[in-house]
Amino acid sequence: MTQTASTTTSFNQKFRAAAERNQSLLCVGLDPDPAKIPAGVSTRDFLFGLVDATSDVVCAYKPNIAFFEPDLGEGINLLRDLIAYIPDDVPVLLDAKRGDIGHTAEAYARAIYDSLGVDAVTLNPYLGRDSLEPFLRRTDRTAFLLCRTSNPGAGDLQDMEVEGHPLYERVAYLANQWNEHGNVGLVVGATYPAEAKRIREICPELPFLMPGVGAQDGDIEVAVQAALDADGAGILVNASRGVMYAPAEDGRWADASRRAAETLRDQINAARAR
Amino acid sequence: MTQTASTTTSFNQKFRAAAERNQSLLCVGLDPDPAKIPAGVSTRDFLFGLVDATSDVVCAYKPNIAFFEPDLGEGINLLRDLIAYIPDDVPVLLDAKRGDIGHTAEAYARAIYDSLGVDAVTLNPYLGRDSLEPFLRRTDRTAFLLCRTSNPGAGDLQDMEVEGHPLYERVAYLANQWNEHGNVGLVVGATYPAEAKRIREICPELPFLMPGVGAQDGDIEVAVQAALDADGAGILVNASRGVMYAPAEDGRWADASRRAAETLRDQINAARAR
Repeated sequence: MTQTASTTTSFNQKFRAAAERNQSLLCVGLDPDPAKIPAGVSTRDFLFGLVDATSDVVCAYKPNIAFFEPDLGEGINLLRDLIAYIPDDVPVLLDAKRGDIGHTAEAYARAIYDSLGVDAVTLNPYLGRDSLEPFLRRTDRTAFLLCRTSNPGAGDLQDMEVEGHPLYERVAYLANQWNEHGNVGLVVGATYPAEAKRIREICPELPFLMPGVGAQDGDIEVAVQAALDADGAGILVNASRGVMYAPAEDGRWADASRRAAETLRDQINAARAR
Repeated sequence: MTQTASTTTSFNQKFRAAAERNQSLLCVGLDPDPAKIPAGVSTRDFLFGLVDATSDVVCAYKPNIAFFEPDLGEGINLLRDLIAYIPDDVPVLLDAKRGDIGHTAEAYARAIYDSLGVDAVTLNPYLGRDSLEPFLRRTDRTAFLLCRTSNPGAGDLQDMEVEGHPLYERVAYLANQWNEHGNVGLVVGATYPAEAKRIREICPELPFLMPGVGAQDGDIEVAVQAALDADGAGILVNASRGVMYAPAEDGRWADASRRAAETLRDQINAARAR
């Protein structure tokens, strides 16, 4: 899915087309864990098999670069191969949560957008706008900024009260300001639907990446209804372990993952229909 | 410098010993930029040559992992070799600014502390305490949390007023709370001495990594005096490009880098003596 500039389709276009084609707002995380991969299956075969089994029921894939770093050099080559293997018409969002300054941010943007060639990335906003600029100027890619994350300690900083409002709301307002090129999204944990609803009020048009469904136990219906945009779309509901490592019978792990993905897709669609 | 647990010296011990031995609070950043490396010199030879030329005038080295990612697999192998090449008695602080949750944070901690084997790392606190926990529980290593960064846009979030005080001060208070094992440090830009002074008042005992000297034009004397601890130490003043790419005569780049490092070390010591 590495593309030349002349043939580039933006993340937003790819995402909407895949969501429509597959009738799905499910994003599947690709976080290989050697301890959980079925015995006798290589990490490569497992990841490629997951893509084969699910690429027509998802709106995007989200590999987290951390899981390709433990064995470092080789892991990153596998990530590159995986990204190339994903069909061109399914967008790839790299979960990297990067945030650095000046020429360092430029180096990350080159590595992520050019060397790996993904359509979108997650970024940490703590260092401010200039740290995001090398990503924001790539108008065909989308930068998802951490806003209200899905973890138990998310509130330690994100809920601090700034002039009467929690910090994550201020980040949402900044994201609107920084969305000059229509290429900003937000990371909004599915585990915190009240916060998601408030962020949707502030940012009616931004796409939300919503982790926390499945292994993290977010309630899908409540989260989806809190976060949908005016068109009943605009969210990427992410499940990683719940799909990847779905309990399989007779070693048929790809079938099990597909069924888990279909179930989640259908649950999301049921919530949209209500 | 990869170590087994039984022979581990903590970052704090290594840092203090190197600072004393070399009479230096200068940390040299190792950020290879192919466009700036002298013609005919390989990146590897350049980095190894810099270490040879400066390891007795620094208190630590700080490679930024971003500069080893553009060519990905090979870059990371070079980083690993560089870390192994740095003398055991000079601590290595990896500038990675990571921040992720749960099992993802665990994967980063393994990659950084075990696979790469560094003594310390920079982390982004935006995701809260649980995101830092896999690093904090490694009591022999130190986690430097981004507090007030050196870039122009640092204030976009970091200066937001939380109950009458800027967010970075709140992060400083949290860092004290999270310092149960004596292994938390802070990233405090040398470009903002007034903020550094305030953070030192809040955190009298934490080590500060201070980027922004040299290429980023921070005034060394003012920054050092603002940030020194009660013992006249406790800071790692970082210069990267100003040392690495110091103008050289007759191609003697290693000599030029050493002279630049000595000059900075002496300027820092002059400020300490005042």
